Amino acid sequence: MTFNGYDESLVESIRLWLREDVGSGDVTTLSTIPAGHESKGIIHAKEDGVVAGLPVSELVFQVVDPALTFTPQVSEGNFVKKGTVLAVVEGSTHRILTGERLALNLLQRLSGIATRTRSFVDALEGLPTRLVDTRKTTPGHRMLEKYAVRVGGGANHRFGLYDAVMIKDNHIKGAGGIRQAVERARAFIPHTMTIEVETESLEQVEEALEAGADIIMLDNMSQDLMKEAVRRIKAKSPHVTVEASGNVSLKTVKGIAACGVDVISVGRLTYSFDSLDISLDLNAVKEG
Amino acid sequence: MTFNGYDESLVESIRLWLREDVGSGDVTTLSTIPAGHESKGIIHAKEDGVVAGLPVSELVFQVVDPALTFTPQVSEGNFVKKGTVLAVVEGSTHRILTGERLALNLLQRLSGIATRTRSFVDALEGLPTRLVDTRKTTPGHRMLEKYAVRVGGGANHRFGLYDAVMIKDNHIKGAGGIRQAVERARAFIPHTMTIEVETESLEQVEEALEAGADIIMLDNMSQDLMKEAVRRIKAKSPHVTVEASGNVSLKTVKGIAACGVDVISVGRLTYSFDSLDISLDLNAVKEG
Amino acid sequence: MTFNGYDESLVESIRLWLREDVGSGDVTTLSTIPAGHESKGIIHAKEDGVVAGLPVSELVFQVVDPALTFTPQVSEGNFVKKGTVLAVVEGSTHRILTGERLALNLLQRLSGIATRTRSFVDALEGLPTRLVDTRKTTPGHRMLEKYAVRVGGGANHRFGLYDAVMIKDNHIKGAGGIRQAVERARAFIPHTMTIEVETESLEQVEEALEAGADIIMLDNMSQDLMKEAVRRIKAKSPHVTVEASGNVSLKTVKGIAACGVDVISVGRLTYSFDSLDISLDLNAVKEG
Amino acid sequence: MTFNGYDESLVESIRLWLREDVGSGDVTTLSTIPAGHESKGIIHAKEDGVVAGLPVSELVFQVVDPALTFTPQVSEGNFVKKGTVLAVVEGSTHRILTGERLALNLLQRLSGIATRTRSFVDALEGLPTRLVDTRKTTPGHRMLEKYAVRVGGGANHRFGLYDAVMIKDNHIKGAGGIRQAVERARAFIPHTMTIEVETESLEQVEEALEAGADIIMLDNMSQDLMKEAVRRIKAKSPHVTVEASGNVSLKTVKGIAACGVDVISVGRLTYSFDSLDISLDLNAVKEG
Amino acid sequence: MTFNGYDESLVESIRLWLREDVGSGDVTTLSTIPAGHESKGIIHAKEDGVVAGLPVSELVFQVVDPALTFTPQVSEGNFVKKGTVLAVVEGSTHRILTGERLALNLLQRLSGIATRTRSFVDALEGLPTRLVDTRKTTPGHRMLEKYAVRVGGGANHRFGLYDAVMIKDNHIKGAGGIRQAVERARAFIPHTMTIEVETESLEQVEEALEAGADIIMLDNMSQDLMKEAVRRIKAKSPHVTVEASGNVSLKTVKGIAACGVDVISVGRLTYSFDSLDISLDLNAVKEG
Amino acid sequence: MTFNGYDESLVESIRLWLREDVGSGDVTTLSTIPAGHESKGIIHAKEDGVVAGLPVSELVFQVVDPALTFTPQVSEGNFVKKGTVLAVVEGSTHRILTGERLALNLLQRLSGIATRTRSFVDALEGLPTRLVDTRKTTPGHRMLEKYAVRVGGGANHRFGLYDAVMIKDNHIKGAGGIRQAVERARAFIPHTMTIEVETESLEQVEEALEAGADIIMLDNMSQDLMKEAVRRIKAKSPHVTVEASGNVSLKTVKGIAACGVDVISVGRLTYSFDSLDISLDLNAVKEG
Repeated sequence: MTFNGYDESLVESIRLWLREDVGSGDVTTLSTIPAGHESKGIIHAKEDGVVAGLPVSELVFQVVDPALTFTPQVSEGNFVKKGTVLAVVEGSTHRILTGERLALNLLQRLSGIATRTRSFVDALEGLPTRLVDTRKTTPGHRMLEKYAVRVGGGANHRFGLYDAVMIKDNHIKGAGGIRQAVERARAFIPHTMTIEVETESLEQVEEALEAGADIIMLDNMSQDLMKEAVRRIKAKSPHVTVEASGNVSLKTVKGIAACGVDVISVGRLTYSFDSLDISLDLNAVKEG
Repeated sequence: MTFNGYDESLVESIRLWLREDVGSGDVTTLSTIPAGHESKGIIHAKEDGVVAGLPVSELVFQVVDPALTFTPQVSEGNFVKKGTVLAVVEGSTHRILTGERLALNLLQRLSGIATRTRSFVDALEGLPTRLVDTRKTTPGHRMLEKYAVRVGGGANHRFGLYDAVMIKDNHIKGAGGIRQAVERARAFIPHTMTIEVETESLEQVEEALEAGADIIMLDNMSQDLMKEAVRRIKAKSPHVTVEASGNVSLKTVKGIAACGVDVISVGRLTYSFDSLDISLDLNAVKEG
Repeated sequence: MTFNGYDESLVESIRLWLREDVGSGDVTTLSTIPAGHESKGIIHAKEDGVVAGLPVSELVFQVVDPALTFTPQVSEGNFVKKGTVLAVVEGSTHRILTGERLALNLLQRLSGIATRTRSFVDALEGLPTRLVDTRKTTPGHRMLEKYAVRVGGGANHRFGLYDAVMIKDNHIKGAGGIRQAVERARAFIPHTMTIEVETESLEQVEEALEAGADIIMLDNMSQDLMKEAVRRIKAKSPHVTVEASGNVSLKTVKGIAACGVDVISVGRLTYSFDSLDISLDLNAVKEG
Repeated sequence: MTFNGYDESLVESIRLWLREDVGSGDVTTLSTIPAGHESKGIIHAKEDGVVAGLPVSELVFQVVDPALTFTPQVSEGNFVKKGTVLAVVEGSTHRILTGERLALNLLQRLSGIATRTRSFVDALEGLPTRLVDTRKTTPGHRMLEKYAVRVGGGANHRFGLYDAVMIKDNHIKGAGGIRQAVERARAFIPHTMTIEVETESLEQVEEALEAGADIIMLDNMSQDLMKEAVRRIKAKSPHVTVEASGNVSLKTVKGIAACGVDVISVGRLTYSFDSLDISLDLNAVKEG
Repeated sequence: MTFNGYDESLVESIRLWLREDVGSGDVTTLSTIPAGHESKGIIHAKEDGVVAGLPVSELVFQVVDPALTFTPQVSEGNFVKKGTVLAVVEGSTHRILTGERLALNLLQRLSGIATRTRSFVDALEGLPTRLVDTRKTTPGHRMLEKYAVRVGGGANHRFGLYDAVMIKDNHIKGAGGIRQAVERARAFIPHTMTIEVETESLEQVEEALEAGADIIMLDNMSQDLMKEAVRRIKAKSPHVTVEASGNVSLKTVKGIAACGVDVISVGRLTYSFDSLDISLDLNAVKEG
Repeated sequence: MTFNGYDESLVESIRLWLREDVGSGDVTTLSTIPAGHESKGIIHAKEDGVVAGLPVSELVFQVVDPALTFTPQVSEGNFVKKGTVLAVVEGSTHRILTGERLALNLLQRLSGIATRTRSFVDALEGLPTRLVDTRKTTPGHRMLEKYAVRVGGGANHRFGLYDAVMIKDNHIKGAGGIRQAVERARAFIPHTMTIEVETESLEQVEEALEAGADIIMLDNMSQDLMKEAVRRIKAKSPHVTVEASGNVSLKTVKGIAACGVDVISVGRLTYSFDSLDISLDLNAVKEG
């Protein structure tokens, strides 16, 4: 099966990650277990949470050995209770053990991200506000982590520096003003691309509106300020998207949404996290 | 400068990680800021913690542009207060912005790991017990994360599957017993390599001792059991190293150490963490 | 100097391309010319046209040998007459000859694209219509060719499948209708990303408008149809961008623009072209 | 099936080219079309020409998804009329759309080259003269473009700087004369390799003959001069090959051949070209 | 089948090595033999020796073409007489010829190493001494050559600079003494790693013992000195391993072993060798 | 300095080879020697022989650290006596030790090949016969080993399967005869490429001559047979090159040359060899 349309870069990352762990050889497995030995591995949750990463774990085992079979026992995105069996992997014991740590490390991290995302999404239940991530992802894992956010019920902000313009304080200073920055960006980018401006005051919000920004981010504003900003933006340009950012926690997220913003971005979905505890037990099916 | 003797693989990882973020080009910076614009970037801590990763951040900026200068303002491993300036980077504004997110993502994560490690190490102050990490690291970041553990005052467990034998339950089952597993491993490995056996009972401890294990891990044992295991091992083979593992927290770590084990391994040093909040402010030094 | 912010992938492509040509060694140069021999190479145009690719040529020579100096004699984007000297490269004769063919092959192709683009742009002089390219670029050369289009005065369409949604006939069929396709895409993509719908009739134009497309492409429509489509779109949703595509030539482009479309996309800017004839003459400056 | 004996580098190029287009994911297809949807894609010519590149297109689809089936409907090298179906590709709609643009971009370019080559070859019909290409190929595409020349009925010049010696004006100057250049090259190269000398006058032809060149190229000579050069070369060393080069067009090629040269090399076979217009239509075979 | 648990890096090396030989194409095979031609290739020994490398040869043919079948006729490690058939490979003649040279070059070298190792091991028959290799292996071939040593009946020294500490003269000088060097290393390395110290005198042996070295190497000592060193080490620290090194030949190896050392390391197992002469004969099974 | 015109692939090989040895880090050097410690390393011969590989050793140290200085003390190709200092490397002790083993492993092997080549070349002194190598080189080292053969005074056979046609027994069988094989090859290859035919009898020699081979190899023939073959070839086609191959030793090489062949190819120049013993001594110049 496939994970995401064309998985070649992911497969290459998996190869790099396997080499990091396996290096010049898994001396323990190679020496202690007969080459022909086969097992069934049971992957189960050791605490409650949202499962994300089963297709990636499957891909890890496929890269290690296409002859291994991997059978998910729950659906991606399910909330599971401690003890739930998530998947079964079967085949060469050597190969299962080679892939075990990497498959679990990925599954644990992605499930941790999906679980945290779910808790934010639940806090917004019934509201039209979209919850999104940021670029504060683990280097080399961005596509996976953004995928886990979607599995957890969130949505994504831009994928990188290349697929949308985000004008921040430093760019405004470099360009000499919001208007100049937006104009230069508009001239440079494809007509298929949008421009977001980060603002810290109502004055900046007005400037961004004037300049024709497609998205206006309200950065670290008080809720009163946000309400006023939303009012002004929607009055003048209803198709402009409003995004709130900064100091978003499970306690504050609903109040921020109530200010009328369209999108709330939360860095801590991916830049701090608790892995979901998951482990693999092996049972021999052929002594080798 | 150099980070770790021969940094070629790290440089290659940095290139991959930059491509993940920059992709087909940083459309915002390229369009809004003049090519000749130069800035000074101030990297400072936004909360208290142990700093780790300054040489890696420097390497990121060097890979982006060898002409950027990077000047650390504190020493690697220092505990710093919120607001402390950690480093200054100076040169092309385009290039600083290209490397910014990656440099910060790494610095924040590694400092988070070092900070957590330091809290465990502090809890063991005055005791001879060694605190070590595990293989539950982020795929592609193992060497960096194990480095951060050392910066935080901890030590490392084996680097991967290739540099030491670790006989776990699955290997024991596959081999038909601890004795057989140790014998086969000893025959296979270089005389420079050691064998560790994971045990869950005093019977297994005795078997591992008999078999000639170099290191015996006590996995998830009660403190009473650990004390008895340490007593038996040291009585019979004083040069054998004893390691404790499983459910180690800041609350339990000192009690475990008091059982007389030589080493305590803690998975959560690296597999769950809070990044240390760090940011970069730019000031123009040349308008370009 | 730098070509485009962070040129690492381009540098890697240049290495691959050099290997393609140099393989196991330039047997002619290695054997016939002394290692210490140095020359000055004069790069000049052998026909009239717009110059594009000087920074790329420079990068080729830098990759071959950082000690070579490359001095442009005209500005990127200049229209030059036959005989004009474009640049001078100086240093080791061995190294200049190693890079010569690749540097010229790139310069000739990119200048050919810029020259053709300029002729289309000139045909639209005075009109607000934007001329853009397509994804019909040479595999492995997209960023360079899209850059040459910009140098020639055009703009770019999306960079690839990843930075904008383009719903074509096949997607409409697969989704079961324009409305469904737009809805699903909107739910999936970041709020920073836009949706373009390709239409072939006024009915499809209406559907796309209803569905909330950000950009509507009029594919291969007659000028009368285009005028009516533009009228309906702008009446209902003035912020929606209208793009014309299909059978655009130097003869038809102005008439199409007159229909009121915002953007015209032209495949033949990059998928058929005449290289601009450019060559390099060497003069010895040190006999070696 | 295989394209050229050992296709590993081509497969690697295809992967790079796919990444260029697909990047972080085909957002349109992933969002609008169900994962299980299957289609049949009809690849057909939209103008008359010689088909080249079917095995390469097949390889593209194989790299994207080994489960796709690709069935050519005409033979490589056939001259086809507008409307002819060239091949049918069947399987996952997601995967066909992922590979579509790359497969077509390659097929269109290679068919364009084969079509132009065929017109030159036809102009030489009945004559023993061999028509060959040059090193003025698209960087990264040399092997494919030289293959297309063969498909069109032409032959190849050397593959790169590594498989034959070609002494040009710059080498002659660097070596101090034709004789010295040939001597040094002969001493250096394997006895399996040949030496070609580029000449611009009868004096140089005589020198090259004296020096023992295996192939003598007549560069940009008038037809009278070429006839005399051929006469002198064949009189003295009948086994020496004579090649003509420079300003070869469909109008002049037959006259040049009539001068008695063995080989005519034509740069414009590959460095300027018109792609052959080819497209792909999808029909659903399973709704997914 | 698999060679060593996870063979990805070996597969990548094989691809590099195939490109080295095949380059832009095997012009002989591609032109002279029909694409559909199939053969059976008989691989046989042309002199007596120990066979090593059959799984690697198989992997070469698999990388070239997964459809080739490879059937070993003897077991890895067998001593064979001249004329013995070692394996049969069957399938596409094109593909067998593409892989032939690489498969044979590897098989010949590895068998040469195994054969030489066997002669040393035979010289130690009945003794408990372990014969090991060094890091004087062919760059890029270390894992294969160390594997061949094991096939020949020897064991391995450390795999590289990363999996054990080996303190040599230069490190002692740099650290300021054996004691300091051992202390610093012990503080730095994982508790799973060992420390070996190279000594040239009894004084150094005593220092290494005091410092707590795990392994003491006696470098180029006379047999009398070695006996005394062994006596002192075993008297004081019976679990310390003693290794002899330097000027070990088939004539001296038994005498060295008789000194009581645990391990003898021999550089010439891998850094000088005679390939075992092996060749491949093809018989057509399908004319193509 | 540069080794061979464009050394990028060699640099990449050196990086791979360094990783093989250094892996996750040189734990000994990193822990025992201060980071700022600097040394001067003296590379000297421990036995007599021809030196080859100094520029490659230099490149190794440059890749490890561009700040290291490397100063050859003898010229590449010199015959040196035991004890001669070959080169001095100076700079960071960490970095010298990181590169030491690889630099020496390469220098020892290449000097071993050059030394053996020189002995064959000396045996042919005064004769016009050219001594050449074969494709029986170490995988991944072909360019280096063929370079060492040239340094030793020999010449090269073709570089790989791609730069010349070599029709062997298997190709003759596959093509249906020498004539067919030569014809097909001639039609396929560039006019710049030659065709060699391997023959085992005078009948085959005649066939090859008839077919128009450029080079005829006499494989494993008796000296009488070789003399007659040479006589017939030179009588009919004096420009055809004659090569002898098979069972060439220092004892037989002169007799074979006396048969009048132009070239003698010797597999054992590269496929069995004795490394030249070379070592590196460090002296501290800065304590760090």
